[in-house]
Amino acid sequence: MLSQIDHVGIAVANLQQAVAEYGAAFGLRPTHRERVESQGVDEVLFVLGESAVQLLGALGPDTPVGRFLATRGEGVHHVAYRVDDIERSLEDLRAAGIRLIDTVPRPGSRGTRIAFAHPRAFRGVLVELVEHPRP
Amino acid sequence: MLSQIDHVGIAVANLQQAVAEYGAAFGLRPTHRERVESQGVDEVLFVLGESAVQLLGALGPDTPVGRFLATRGEGVHHVAYRVDDIERSLEDLRAAGIRLIDTVPRPGSRGTRIAFAHPRAFRGVLVELVEHPRP
Repeated sequence: MLSQIDHVGIAVANLQQAVAEYGAAFGLRPTHRERVESQGVDEVLFVLGESAVQLLGALGPDTPVGRFLATRGEGVHHVAYRVDDIERSLEDLRAAGIRLIDTVPRPGSRGTRIAFAHPRAFRGVLVELVEHPRP
Repeated sequence: MLSQIDHVGIAVANLQQAVAEYGAAFGLRPTHRERVESQGVDEVLFVLGESAVQLLGALGPDTPVGRFLATRGEGVHHVAYRVDDIERSLEDLRAAGIRLIDTVPRPGSRGTRIAFAHPRAFRGVLVELVEHPRP
């Protein structure tokens, strides 16, 4: 059902500084930048093979990533898996007894459709499903 | 330098239960199990495309994963990147000013050679480099 790791999302306090650091360490330039107002984040992607590292800066303290930074500090915020058919994957997860945050998909960055499962369902890991737009 | 995400390592309190849960949710069977005494862990891998999800159970409370579970709880323990030449990658990271835990590689699971960078260097994320054995 889950075909690959789409990205690992990392919450950072200072996005510009983190992008410079990751870029220098990876020897890579970021491949995508986007503000996702509905999720209260600025995101920057570094593509690595078929996956990506996604750095996330909060647009304010009263956003999911802002609250995460305040309580947990910087670090991995979520792990995202790519799926072909997000409605079917959500149905499969529900059938497997997985607790969901989103029972229907919502718009993500890059024209994707996304949905989150509850961290308790995946041993403390916030899991995101990502369906990319069909070419 | 870093070519792809090798795996995401997730610390879990009950490995057998977590493997059953992830297997059911992913619709996958684990592809590898190994006890790595030198790191105090039992690991179980689920391969997803070119990457993997690695579930980690501690062999006791006084191990790195045991201490992580006691202080942070279950969740993402590290993100591992695949490299072709680990000595060269360690040199590159040092040249980029990255603080390292391991300045020389040590043996990992599956015949790999691995090294960890300090979480402060990657915004709270424990980063592992992995060089796979050449075929």
